[in-house]
Formats: sequence, C-alpha cells, structure tokens
Amino acid sequence: MKLENPTPINWKFSDRAEQLQSSAIREILKVTMRPEVISFAGGLPSPETFPVERMKAAFDKVLSTQGKAALQYGPTDGYAPLREFLADSLSVDGSRILPEQILMVSGSQQGLDLLGKVLVDEGSKVLVETPSYLGALQAFSVYRPEFVSVDTDAHGLIPASVASKGAGARLMYALPNFQNPTGRTLSVERRVELVETCARMGIPLIEDNPYGDLCYSGEPLPKMLNMNPGGVIYMGSFSKVLTPGIRLGYVVGPTPLIRKLEQAKQAADLHTAQLTQMVVYEVIKDGFLAEHIPTIRNLYSRQCNVMLDAMKKHFPAGVEWTTPEGGMFIWITLPAHIDSNELLAEAIQQNVAFVPGGPFYANEAEKNTMRLSFVTVSPERINEGIEKLGKLIKARIPA
Amino acid sequence: MKLENPTPINWKFSDRAEQLQSSAIREILKVTMRPEVISFAGGLPSPETFPVERMKAAFDKVLSTQGKAALQYGPTDGYAPLREFLADSLSVDGSRILPEQILMVSGSQQGLDLLGKVLVDEGSKVLVETPSYLGALQAFSVYRPEFVSVDTDAHGLIPASVASKGAGARLMYALPNFQNPTGRTLSVERRVELVETCARMGIPLIEDNPYGDLCYSGEPLPKMLNMNPGGVIYMGSFSKVLTPGIRLGYVVGPTPLIRKLEQAKQAADLHTAQLTQMVVYEVIKDGFLAEHIPTIRNLYSRQCNVMLDAMKKHFPAGVEWTTPEGGMFIWITLPAHIDSNELLAEAIQQNVAFVPGGPFYANEAEKNTMRLSFVTVSPERINEGIEKLGKLIKARIPA
Repeated sequence: MKLENPTPINWKFSDRAEQLQSSAIREILKVTMRPEVISFAGGLPSPETFPVERMKAAFDKVLSTQGKAALQYGPTDGYAPLREFLADSLSVDGSRILPEQILMVSGSQQGLDLLGKVLVDEGSKVLVETPSYLGALQAFSVYRPEFVSVDTDAHGLIPASVASKGAGARLMYALPNFQNPTGRTLSVERRVELVETCARMGIPLIEDNPYGDLCYSGEPLPKMLNMNPGGVIYMGSFSKVLTPGIRLGYVVGPTPLIRKLEQAKQAADLHTAQLTQMVVYEVIKDGFLAEHIPTIRNLYSRQCNVMLDAMKKHFPAGVEWTTPEGGMFIWITLPAHIDSNELLAEAIQQNVAFVPGGPFYANEAEKNTMRLSFVTVSPERINEGIEKLGKLIKARIPA
Repeated sequence: MKLENPTPINWKFSDRAEQLQSSAIREILKVTMRPEVISFAGGLPSPETFPVERMKAAFDKVLSTQGKAALQYGPTDGYAPLREFLADSLSVDGSRILPEQILMVSGSQQGLDLLGKVLVDEGSKVLVETPSYLGALQAFSVYRPEFVSVDTDAHGLIPASVASKGAGARLMYALPNFQNPTGRTLSVERRVELVETCARMGIPLIEDNPYGDLCYSGEPLPKMLNMNPGGVIYMGSFSKVLTPGIRLGYVVGPTPLIRKLEQAKQAADLHTAQLTQMVVYEVIKDGFLAEHIPTIRNLYSRQCNVMLDAMKKHFPAGVEWTTPEGGMFIWITLPAHIDSNELLAEAIQQNVAFVPGGPFYANEAEKNTMRLSFVTVSPERINEGIEKLGKLIKARIPA
C-alpha cells in the first residue's frame, strides 16, 4: 500500500518558525560531551547534588500509596497540596500569595513560553537586561517582539533605563539573583526602584529566580514579588535546588494572568505530570530543602572560589570578570578587540570549552564577552582549563 | 518594602491569547467530580488498566542504576534508546523509520501545539474532520488559522472533500482509528485515497493515533505513515496503553520538519523528563505492551457492549449512534430539534453527565450530538445512566 514515487513535501514553515534556531549553547554542548574536554560551557547543575535516594524513596511511596491517582490525568493548574505549600512559602514580607495565583509548569522554560504566548504580539516591545538569559530570548522571540535592551552596569540592571526606554512595553524580564549569564545580583534599592518604575508605567515585571536560593553567604535578598504582588510575575524552579531532569517549575502572578496562562497551558500540554508533582511535594514538605540547599551552596561557593583564584593567577591584565555572590556563572569581559567566538575555536582545539557572550544580547552583541560555569568541573580541571584559556588570551594581546 | 497603593496592572493579552478559552470538557469534568454523578463525560482511560506495580519497579530500577543521568537535563529530541525502539516498531509495511525522525514530546497535546506553532500562520487554511478532536482545535486555534471542515459520513472522513476544499492548506489533521469524538474508523481504501490526495496537493497529513492499539478484535489497520513516510506526520502516545499522567508522546515525520519541531520544543520546555522516558523504555522494551494491551481491549470492549445494549433498550427511535470497533467513545445523534446542551443541564440534575457535541466542530456545530465514554463507569451504572438519559430524550420527543 506504499505510494510509489509520491511528490515530496515542499515544507512551508510559519513566519514565527523561521525565527527558531537551535540554541548556541546546546550546539556547543554536543561538541563538548567528550570526556577529555574541560567544559565551562554547561548550565547544568552538578549531579553530585541530586538527592537520588530521597527521590527514589518518594517515587516508591507515592506509587505505593496513590499510584492510580498519580498516573491519571491531572488538573492543568497543578497538584493542589504542592501549590498550597509554595503559596505559604512565598507569603512573606507582609504579602499573602494564594494557591490560585500559582500555575505549575513543565520547567521554567515553559513558563517563559506561555508568558510570551499570552503577552506578546508581533512587534510588542519587550524589555530585557543587557545581556539577558538566552532561554528567555529564545522563548519570547518565537512571538516576534521588538526587544529593547535595558542598560546595565556592574551592579546589574539600571531602573532609570526602564523609565526612559520602556513606554508601552508589554513586559520587563529580569533575573535579579546571580543572573545567567553575568552572575550579577540586583541590590535591594534597585529592586524597589525597578518595581516602582514598572508599576508606575503599567509594565508587568517578570522576576525569574532559578538561582536565588544558591547564595554563598547570608540570606537571599527580598523578592520583588512581595514588593508588589499585583504587578510582578514570579518564576520558580526545582531544577537548581533538587534536579532539573524532572522538569518542574511554577509561575506566580495576579489571578487574571494565571487563569489566562492556565488556558494556554491546557492547549500546550494539558498539565504537568501529577506523579512528578506529588513526588516533589513528598520530598520537600517536611523541610528537606532547608537542609539540602546549604550543601549545594557550599559546593558551588568552593568551586567558584577556585575559578576566581585561577583567573587571578592566569588571566592577563585587561581581562575583567564578575565576582558572583551565588549561583553558577562568572562573566568575563575580554579586551575589546578579542572575539570570544574565535577564542572558543582555539580553546576547543585544546579541549577547553565555554559559551561566547554574543547570543545573550537581544540587540548589539558585545563579542568580547564569555560565560563560564564552574559547578560541574573538579578544582584540578578548573585550574587546568583556566590556565589554558589564560595562555590563549595572552597570545591575542599585543605585547 | 511593599509598595503602598501601587497602580494595578491593566492586563493587555496578546491577540492569540484572546482565542483561548477553557475546554468545555474540563469545565464539565469539574461539575462531575462528585461521586454520585454517573459521568460519561470523561476522556480518561480506566485507572484499572494502569500497570502501577510495573511502573514502580521501573522507577526503582532506573533510579538505582542510572539515577544521576535520569535526573539531569537531557537532549531535546528525547532518550535515544526509546526513540530507537519506537523507530523499529514503526518500520513496517516496507518502510523504514529512522530514530532521527522521532521527537519525544510531553504528551500528544504538546505535539499538536508544536505543529501549530511551526506550520500555521494567521489565516492559514487548516483542514479538520467534521467533527474533530477538541484538543487539536484548541491547540491550533492559538495560531489563528482558518479552519476548513472536511466532509464526513458514517465511515469517517471523505477524501474527495479534501480534494475539493483543500487547495493551499497548511495541514490536514485526521484521527483515523476510533476517532475522538465519533468512535469511527477510516477504511483502508479511504486511507490510501487520503494519503494520495494530500501527497498530490502537497498538504502535510497529520495522523493522530492515540487509540489505534485499542481495537476490540483483529489487528490495527495499516498506518498512513507507512504509506507515505515523506508526507505523513504521525503522532503516538503512551496515555491510553500505559498511563496518561506521565505525559509522554511522540511525533514522527520527515527530518526537516522534526528538526524544526525540535527547535520549537527547545524554546517551549527544553526537553521531556529523561526519567519518564527511561522508565517507559524499561517497561516496554521486552514486549510488555503485547501482553498488557489485550487486557485494556477486553475491558473497554465489554464496557462498550454494555453501553450499546443499554442504548438499544432505553433510547427511543430517532436517536442514532456509532458502533465503535475500538477506543473509548460512542457518538450520539439526537433528533435534529434536540439541543444536547439543554439535555446536559437536565441530565446533571439527575446526576448523569456527558459531553455535548458542539465544541468538536470547527465551524457550524451540530447541536443535536453528544459524546459518551464508557471506560471508567461500571456496567450497573452504565445501565442506570443510559436509562435516565433515555427518559430525558423521550420527554423531548413529541408524542
């Protein structure tokens, strides 16, 4: 019954599909899967931190006691006990977050896609940091916005730039804690100013917070969500504090928006796996994260210091880098004439990899930048890799 | 630090978000969760068929032996051994399907969303059956197509109608086996004609097949995919043969399309949970489905016969219904003057529920139709519910 010589399809993709490209990072990661490569390119958390035994016990318990419910279709907004738990955890600093303000999603990336879907029309003005999280740029770009790059300095986003460039914007996307890619943290004063500015201008403010709990010392800074629950859309994730492979995150916001996002999610994938949500609730409900997260902080803090020390030792004058107070990334600014794409090509020859900074810019890229992650590489290999990178950089600086 | 009296956001949603509404079925399901309601409204598979112990053992094994890999980020296209297994299973009838032609998705619904995203522009012509699967209409409608309703008869979709109405269409969406909502099956002859027509006209043909394995007797009919692998996009799902709550399905198609869908999936949710894919592979790799699926077929076949017998006994002359050869649904056509929405309001008063047929039509709805599912209701309650429905219908037919 097979057709003989059927006419092949001449694929015509949608205009929005023409925007899509494979992530530069994922393409680099394919190259760097070889074990001999010292890869600072990953955005992956360290598997050493995954509580495998605890997850296994929770899967066993949920499947033993509520197996059929866990494996059946579930509600689009998510597993109610988990939403209630999260709502309570987020109700701090004098504000009350209700469970109906929370939508569980299949990882934060889905939250970004759904927000783009319901908030962005073709040509809508979308404000992003300079540079910004690549996954957010990808998710929003499908909906063909006009990206406006908000100015930043060594302390992160400059709220006055929102005031001057943001009129009529459909959303402002910010990652205030240990930003991906720069590792920068927005000060409390700037948070207040940003929240006030967005509220005054009627711009929904997205606070993406995958790394917030990974502070190396002290306590996390106050969330912008709690400063103005009616105007801030908060995104949380279990990827960096439990495990990423289960794909579980959540979006918190004003009820009219959450109901619209819920409809979009219903059309997009019906709901996020019940079993996963029940297991995560089982794992965290008695306070496990409070004992687990410090072990991640300690590991990443140690690794970060190793990389910072290695850079001091091996990088030449004229190279600048951020000193993160948490999270997974250091951002490097090379002398202006060095293109980090060219540096990467040389580095891969020497079995060292990183992510060039260009793709993190919505508009004009600063090509002399790069992102390094230290979390999955051993101290010895961090030293070795940074030393190699230092030599390559020095070779590109005229004597 | 909470803002005092911030200006509330005046939410402006995207034009596409204005298309979104909550599914009529999900709204009805909320009403019918009360245990006293006899609900024929669900599209849920019977939890009696879920292999809970087998799933539990597979989670335990995968987490014990490959825990860290299972819980880490994974590739966007999916877990390679599972894709290889599926490619082999689909390579029949003289055609070879390659693993790179398969994209794993977070349930078939995500496949529909991604297909709409990469194939449909605003105003694109999209061909659907009359009536069609509601979830597909919802997924595509976000991208604002012009739906064209292809004619159908008691034997399903009429291929000649595609030839006459389909010029320039961006896709044809068909559900050939035990269709949701009608329960109808497309004959082999019509499959061949449909595949030929679409190939000749250059229209990508989507073959959605969630129920194909649930035939009550004999073997499943040949897949359209194998008749023209270069022009057919096949969608498979584990929801009806294993469990739906894990959210796992797959899209099979020509490589250029699959790569574009992969990019769209990367922006939409990065990837589907590795753990889930590894567990499903563990469950099915040694032929479990071949022993498991017959138990589902037998259960659904028995329940279907109970409902068909009850309708013969209790429904008055002038009511027509389909006689499914598999799957989960029977489609009822009432006398033309009866609006099934009004019937539903009365039925709910008597603790019986079903889904009115209207929402399954992309264009003019036939309001005298309704969809009944028999799979999660006991034989006694099927009889009781059909008897009550029969009385309500009789009361609406003039003596």
